[in-house]
Amino acid sequence: MPDIHEQSIHTIKFLSVDAVEKANSGHPGMPMGCADLAYILFYEFLQTSPTHLDWANRDRFILSAGHGSMLQYALLHLCGFDVSLDEIKNFRQLTSKTPGHPEVGHTPGVEATTGPLGQGTANAVGMALAAKMMQETFQTDAFNPIDHHVYAIVSDGDLMEGISSESASLAGHLQLSNLIYIYDDNNISIDGSTDISFSEDVGKRFQAFGWYVQSIDGHNHQEIRNAIANAKNQDEKPSIIIAKTHIAHGSPNKQDTSSSHGAPLGKDEVRLTKEKALWPLDKPFFVPNEVTAHFSKRSEKVNQQISNWQKNFDVWKTQNPDKFTLWQKYWDKSPQALFETLQENLPTMPDATRSISNKIQQKVAALVPNLVGGSADLACSCKTLIKDGGDVLAAHFHGRNIHFGIREHAMGAIANGMSLYGSMIPYTSTFLVFSDYMRPTIRMAALSKIQTIFIFTHDSIFVGEDGPTHQPVEQIPSLRLIPNLQVARPCNAEETAASWSWAIEKKDGPTTIILSRQNLANIPANSYQDLPKGGYVFSKESKTSLDLILIATGSEVPLACEVREALEAQGKSVRVVSIPCLEIFENQDENYIQSVLPQGVQKVVIEAAQGDLWYKWIGHDGIVIDMHTFGTSAPGEEVAEHFGFSKEHILDCIASAM
Amino acid sequence: MPDIHEQSIHTIKFLSVDAVEKANSGHPGMPMGCADLAYILFYEFLQTSPTHLDWANRDRFILSAGHGSMLQYALLHLCGFDVSLDEIKNFRQLTSKTPGHPEVGHTPGVEATTGPLGQGTANAVGMALAAKMMQETFQTDAFNPIDHHVYAIVSDGDLMEGISSESASLAGHLQLSNLIYIYDDNNISIDGSTDISFSEDVGKRFQAFGWYVQSIDGHNHQEIRNAIANAKNQDEKPSIIIAKTHIAHGSPNKQDTSSSHGAPLGKDEVRLTKEKALWPLDKPFFVPNEVTAHFSKRSEKVNQQISNWQKNFDVWKTQNPDKFTLWQKYWDKSPQALFETLQENLPTMPDATRSISNKIQQKVAALVPNLVGGSADLACSCKTLIKDGGDVLAAHFHGRNIHFGIREHAMGAIANGMSLYGSMIPYTSTFLVFSDYMRPTIRMAALSKIQTIFIFTHDSIFVGEDGPTHQPVEQIPSLRLIPNLQVARPCNAEETAASWSWAIEKKDGPTTIILSRQNLANIPANSYQDLPKGGYVFSKESKTSLDLILIATGSEVPLACEVREALEAQGKSVRVVSIPCLEIFENQDENYIQSVLPQGVQKVVIEAAQGDLWYKWIGHDGIVIDMHTFGTSAPGEEVAEHFGFSKEHILDCIASAM
Repeated sequence: MPDIHEQSIHTIKFLSVDAVEKANSGHPGMPMGCADLAYILFYEFLQTSPTHLDWANRDRFILSAGHGSMLQYALLHLCGFDVSLDEIKNFRQLTSKTPGHPEVGHTPGVEATTGPLGQGTANAVGMALAAKMMQETFQTDAFNPIDHHVYAIVSDGDLMEGISSESASLAGHLQLSNLIYIYDDNNISIDGSTDISFSEDVGKRFQAFGWYVQSIDGHNHQEIRNAIANAKNQDEKPSIIIAKTHIAHGSPNKQDTSSSHGAPLGKDEVRLTKEKALWPLDKPFFVPNEVTAHFSKRSEKVNQQISNWQKNFDVWKTQNPDKFTLWQKYWDKSPQALFETLQENLPTMPDATRSISNKIQQKVAALVPNLVGGSADLACSCKTLIKDGGDVLAAHFHGRNIHFGIREHAMGAIANGMSLYGSMIPYTSTFLVFSDYMRPTIRMAALSKIQTIFIFTHDSIFVGEDGPTHQPVEQIPSLRLIPNLQVARPCNAEETAASWSWAIEKKDGPTTIILSRQNLANIPANSYQDLPKGGYVFSKESKTSLDLILIATGSEVPLACEVREALEAQGKSVRVVSIPCLEIFENQDENYIQSVLPQGVQKVVIEAAQGDLWYKWIGHDGIVIDMHTFGTSAPGEEVAEHFGFSKEHILDCIASAM
Repeated sequence: MPDIHEQSIHTIKFLSVDAVEKANSGHPGMPMGCADLAYILFYEFLQTSPTHLDWANRDRFILSAGHGSMLQYALLHLCGFDVSLDEIKNFRQLTSKTPGHPEVGHTPGVEATTGPLGQGTANAVGMALAAKMMQETFQTDAFNPIDHHVYAIVSDGDLMEGISSESASLAGHLQLSNLIYIYDDNNISIDGSTDISFSEDVGKRFQAFGWYVQSIDGHNHQEIRNAIANAKNQDEKPSIIIAKTHIAHGSPNKQDTSSSHGAPLGKDEVRLTKEKALWPLDKPFFVPNEVTAHFSKRSEKVNQQISNWQKNFDVWKTQNPDKFTLWQKYWDKSPQALFETLQENLPTMPDATRSISNKIQQKVAALVPNLVGGSADLACSCKTLIKDGGDVLAAHFHGRNIHFGIREHAMGAIANGMSLYGSMIPYTSTFLVFSDYMRPTIRMAALSKIQTIFIFTHDSIFVGEDGPTHQPVEQIPSLRLIPNLQVARPCNAEETAASWSWAIEKKDGPTTIILSRQNLANIPANSYQDLPKGGYVFSKESKTSLDLILIATGSEVPLACEVREALEAQGKSVRVVSIPCLEIFENQDENYIQSVLPQGVQKVVIEAAQGDLWYKWIGHDGIVIDMHTFGTSAPGEEVAEHFGFSKEHILDCIASAM
């Protein structure tokens, strides 16, 4: 009989193999190849406990190669997390806790949703950064409540993705020594050997990024153990352990083949593999009692650590009551209602909403101490710095302003990692047109139901001279299509303040705040009573009858008001409706929606973006003044004129249609 | 008076400075810092001629740092391209040839639209790859009609973007020795010194990617000259020349500052800079006659080279008539009408459209010899290999199947570069959900009006077990929002064939072909007469009256047909309309559209995606059976049932609404 370590590893491998076989779907090769690595990591190093899921100082583990999900489920099961053997038997079935790829919030012990390659590598950087920032904020000479590590198992595919270079470059720059990647270097991807497309020297690349690089045999336990211990001892560099592994390790015919990557081994090969491992053939999902007992020792050990930490923490909190108050604020998950407060003392002069937002952001930053974030080298243009917030710099984490560099994709996923960490509300910023670079991360935030705030400025063709490469057209509606994403596009100070309060309040998903580059009139609405409903009557019609409703968002609201005035001067009774957040408006009851947008009244939408989504709200005979082409390079006012965003042109459109 | 080289460089600098000043918008620092590099490159190395814009063997130049557009415009002007001094005076104005960022097809001599950072680095890889493939296809012992180089000026920002790592890794792997990056290493980005976020060892990183790395003083002409000559002599490695430069070089107060990055120098600083350079203060846009004369010598030299090449080419084409016929096919830009041909002998059995597409693709590949492409490690899943097409491998370019690795973003931009090259029709493939990773490149293709074919499979929640990370929901409508992009989602063999013919026919923009993972019934329409119109009556109503129209695309068309049958059995007269390409359908005349979707008839859309865009076609009272949440991990049929994509559920919806 193999020793207890081998037994444990075989248990992990065959739980994975059996689950994939039963589901007839999944990826057996990766869990088999990584079982040695993951066993040593989980058993000997990873400080996590099923009975203390939210322990602040737990190690974080991300399976960036999310297709190997069964590896994680098997380990969570053995470690005592609420992933039963029945759940493992239900791998990839409806409502199981064991979906095809790990999903945070769905399976206890899963810290990040992974699957789209590369995301996990950057999430881990975000978690490590959050930990370093927490550390510098809360440590005292006597005690450091946050001193854990962040581990990620990453694959060839993860490291081919550009986001991994972006995030590793930043991690090296910042000296995130609490971050450890274990690279499952198996030379196999779906289409075959990585030799067909991937021959770079990964170790050298990570050295260039300023990482501590070790190369080991990923099946040699002593090498694994030493490498992780070495990595933990680093105090200036993040670590990557390049572990040479064999995909489908132990399978007589499928080891080292791409056929084991994304398909079940097949009945015969399962038998052969179990025979070779001296594993019972007639007991699928077999967990030896010895292995269960062995893992219960792990729980005891970790729980002892937690209890030690708790004792120290209790002393710390008594001795540092201010820090502890702040600590509680950081971890508090209850929604903070800021709407009323943020509506006070707003700027009234014409200004760009990005500038107005910056003023409001300062107030938010004062009220929400764990609001941290930054920009992809556009902080000065997007105006998203927290004044006196201090800068997060290399080996210096006592600050709130993060400089992500020109790395939009990593920025989004790092922010998601910070949000997943649990104690921070992160925001990002760049130009709206570059939301395309971040789109996978916005989707992941929405899917993961986490609070990340994505600020996008320079929000339309009115960007002007920079031209069509920098002028968003399809971005606003494209964002509105993402489920569970709140898209706010304010037109004045009150709506910008509301956008911030919506962003802070929504804990179960991301918010984007979309702001103008150019100055807006910053004109007031008739009333802000219904602003919290996401869409409302901004400028009321003059008569009891209603001839026309103009619907607009953001910079087009002042234009709509001009058009309204001209039409009212012609004797028409015209209403302007502003919809700064369509998702919130859509959630109102039908009575309210009807009161704002009554049926049977002609409606005209003005939005400097692709506008086809608006027909849902205005019907066949509605008119949409929008963009169906890319923009052009010229001063903003000329671009507006050129594309028909002028009072005269809109009046013509309305006249010819009515 | 400075020598002719200095004069030329000053001319480039001050044309840039004056243009930015007059426009009161733009980026003067980069052209000033790169004037030495670009002058030596354009004058001494770059084989391009204003009188032979389409010369096949011209060197390609990409200004990846597109914000420095005035550098390129100044050089194009001096080199005699059709960019007049008046155009330069109209920098960033409406309808000028000198937009804020370079736009291909808009300004003679511009080879790629740039601005969104990183794109140009990958476009250059695509061009170099295309050149290598052309070379191996057309060279003989006596003559190689393609032996030019591809140059790109890249910035700190370009190299921070992950796409630059993806594409450089692949370029090193493939040994694209005809590719030369000149890295404008000025340590300054918009938010200040790159020290705040970028401290990696770029040279070492590129060595890790297998590149030839040189470091030089970017203002030392001899070092520049030697480095480019060395790079040109490489025959196994792409080259990067790391050129230390000073942003705003020559400006007494703004050199080396981020304030020179994205704003005019200001009147006073312009004066001081010109004084320091002994440049006339009272002559904005000054071009000394000596400089004009000097550059005319460049034209002579290049035209002599072209004429030599032409002589050799004429001999080559006489001696290699078959090769020449193929050559002409490669460069032919006239649209190829394949609709009828591809409709012949189609598969009739139930199958996934990805598999059907693969069969049709083989036919296309036989008819279109310059169709080349590949996948981001999902060729076997997407089924997009060209059989017997041969593989493009390291230093081996005689093939049609490219293995991009798990690098979706680079794949899109490399394909765009191949398309820009002019002799190839490139395609890419991955899962639809990962179109998000490629979105910036799809936009660039659409904006650049180039023919890139983006194939996306696994096109809905019916992907099944892989779960919500791999199940597209918002992707199809998001793609439909991009201007000048053709989105095709076929439901059977005939429509898949039509999708391919649309993709091959559209020369002035990209097409996406969206295909199912799962088997479809592959049922026939009543008639395919109107299929070329993008949307048509798939299954005709039984009576002259019409009670209901079911609209569907792709895998939902068979479901719509089932629903129709059930309703017809209830005595209703129901039509099924299939719209495989909404963009083409939308371009039909109003009569046709009305004949397919007559007003006043209740309409129901069935599409397993976010469906709000459909209200434009069905009005307020239309019904959309769609997805408003993310999916879930389970077998595809169960997912379908769970989210209401079943005959029973749809019949219920219709019953309750009618």
